[in-house]
Amino acid sequence: MIKILVDTLGGDRSPDVNIDGAIMALNKFEDLQIVLVGNSEDIRAKLEGQTYDHTRLEILHAPDVISCNDKPTEAIRTKKESSLYVAFDTLRKDETVNGFVSNGSTGAILAGAVLRLGRIKGIKRPALCPLLPTMTGNVVAICDSGANMDCDSLMLHQFALMASLYIEKTYNIASPRVALLNVGTEEEKGDMLRKETYSLLSKDERINFVGNMESRDLLKGEYDVVVSDGFGGNVLCKSTEGACLEMLKLLKKTCTKSFKNKLGASFLKKDISEIKDFMDYNNYGGAVLLGANKTIVKAHGSCKAITIMHCIEQAYNIEKNNLRQLIEEGVSQDKSE
Amino acid sequence: MIKILVDTLGGDRSPDVNIDGAIMALNKFEDLQIVLVGNSEDIRAKLEGQTYDHTRLEILHAPDVISCNDKPTEAIRTKKESSLYVAFDTLRKDETVNGFVSNGSTGAILAGAVLRLGRIKGIKRPALCPLLPTMTGNVVAICDSGANMDCDSLMLHQFALMASLYIEKTYNIASPRVALLNVGTEEEKGDMLRKETYSLLSKDERINFVGNMESRDLLKGEYDVVVSDGFGGNVLCKSTEGACLEMLKLLKKTCTKSFKNKLGASFLKKDISEIKDFMDYNNYGGAVLLGANKTIVKAHGSCKAITIMHCIEQAYNIEKNNLRQLIEEGVSQDKSE
Repeated sequence: MIKILVDTLGGDRSPDVNIDGAIMALNKFEDLQIVLVGNSEDIRAKLEGQTYDHTRLEILHAPDVISCNDKPTEAIRTKKESSLYVAFDTLRKDETVNGFVSNGSTGAILAGAVLRLGRIKGIKRPALCPLLPTMTGNVVAICDSGANMDCDSLMLHQFALMASLYIEKTYNIASPRVALLNVGTEEEKGDMLRKETYSLLSKDERINFVGNMESRDLLKGEYDVVVSDGFGGNVLCKSTEGACLEMLKLLKKTCTKSFKNKLGASFLKKDISEIKDFMDYNNYGGAVLLGANKTIVKAHGSCKAITIMHCIEQAYNIEKNNLRQLIEEGVSQDKSE
Repeated sequence: MIKILVDTLGGDRSPDVNIDGAIMALNKFEDLQIVLVGNSEDIRAKLEGQTYDHTRLEILHAPDVISCNDKPTEAIRTKKESSLYVAFDTLRKDETVNGFVSNGSTGAILAGAVLRLGRIKGIKRPALCPLLPTMTGNVVAICDSGANMDCDSLMLHQFALMASLYIEKTYNIASPRVALLNVGTEEEKGDMLRKETYSLLSKDERINFVGNMESRDLLKGEYDVVVSDGFGGNVLCKSTEGACLEMLKLLKKTCTKSFKNKLGASFLKKDISEIKDFMDYNNYGGAVLLGANKTIVKAHGSCKAITIMHCIEQAYNIEKNNLRQLIEEGVSQDKSE
């Protein structure tokens, strides 16, 4: 049995999308147990009349919410009735709980993971690892996408190892192609951090390191994992996402500009909506916090129920494949060398 | 009279695009003098039969080329017959020369500027400042986009001041909106470098500092200048450019997928090609190396003649508006405080 806590507070459309997503996941996986964390009264009202296996669903009462306006490190210490506080407390204390899915404040989730839950033995820092779609239909994982602003090369080396194991084990990709985000593809490019990391990754036979990647090549589908410090990874993810969204807006404007354009666009409608679907993060689950002591998946604040379902599925697959244990073994190898 | 050196070697379509662009610029500005640097025989052959004011065009013989495969710092010291070596030598020695336009190796141009030309008095490091189009039709300047990997907050402060003056004086934008590239918009976001820079920019009354910018908002047209270290700025520019190009490819694929789609796309043809034009860097000149002792403009290696024309126009406008002097005055104010 895999037991996943699901936050029902803190997202733009909480608790509805969270509860709906949880029920979808419950109905998909027979050996999945869900614990909904939030206001029990609201949760019960929403659950009424829905079809699911009642023996596999629990409710954990936590009426308070940590919002994006709260100071993360302070809120995670003081808001003891919040869903995030209660969830991290349970994750730490209850050995039967495997993971946690939330679309609440990223900062508070990171703070909770670091301050209240802890890391896998040997891991210096947990790292956020979201997935983006590429032009070949595969996804690419970016690690770290914003959890760690100041990084050293040992951290980046661990990010590479964790993300490579994650993609290999949960997406069945044999020896994932791992690239280092840099300002050029040549070995000597970048600052000291990149040069040191390049050297570490080149020497590690467990990692299929394919060299430096320029950010313009992210979507080409030539890489499975891109390693970066959190600042660079954050800029990479958000500028790619932002540029795609602005292009879609421009296209929409073009398609509705005149009667003639509307007519032309009507022929293309299905395929243009496929482009939109393709870029829609709701279809790709959430960002996994690799290296935390339990499996944490963070969804977009404004995500839909289907995204929460995908996030629970991610957490479920990660736990099914013993990713945390594999990471711990990988890191302990580094220490024994 | 404004005198600009134009490199005719090192680009993908050199010397043709460089010479054609130079002639366009000569015919546009009556008080512009051009010095073409490269193989004099090839240049003379290409000039034959073209219409331009011969009294305002010179040729500087330099038959050798520094390619992207050369090690920049080494090549700029040893390849004494290369167009870049000769150009930087002339820029340093000849006081009548105002600037330089090249679409050769970026690394070698940076090395030439730092090692052979020098900086404006008081400037810690020159910074590359390209322009990108935004959805409102304005451009946004990104400074630094890759010249400096390891930066401190004083450098970023100078980048902000230089780019703000550049946009104000050469594009006639009163008090340009300056943002700091960061992982979130809140003041306390980012690493120590961002926090220190935020504080410096907030206090400087000469800069219209509007706060932190997330990379997903770059193309919205809400900022005129984005300040960053070279690593972050490089990731920002290239991932935005890359994502836009991949979206255009996806759109092209959609428009040619079937007979029905081709028919629909024929109605939209003009407007879709406007989107393509809009994203085409050839329409926006080059990246200015702000802080160098003469005005240096770097064009894309694979650019067209019209881009070289725009780059010469940029250098011309910068010199017409005494940007270098204004930067020197600005920096000396900082010192006297």
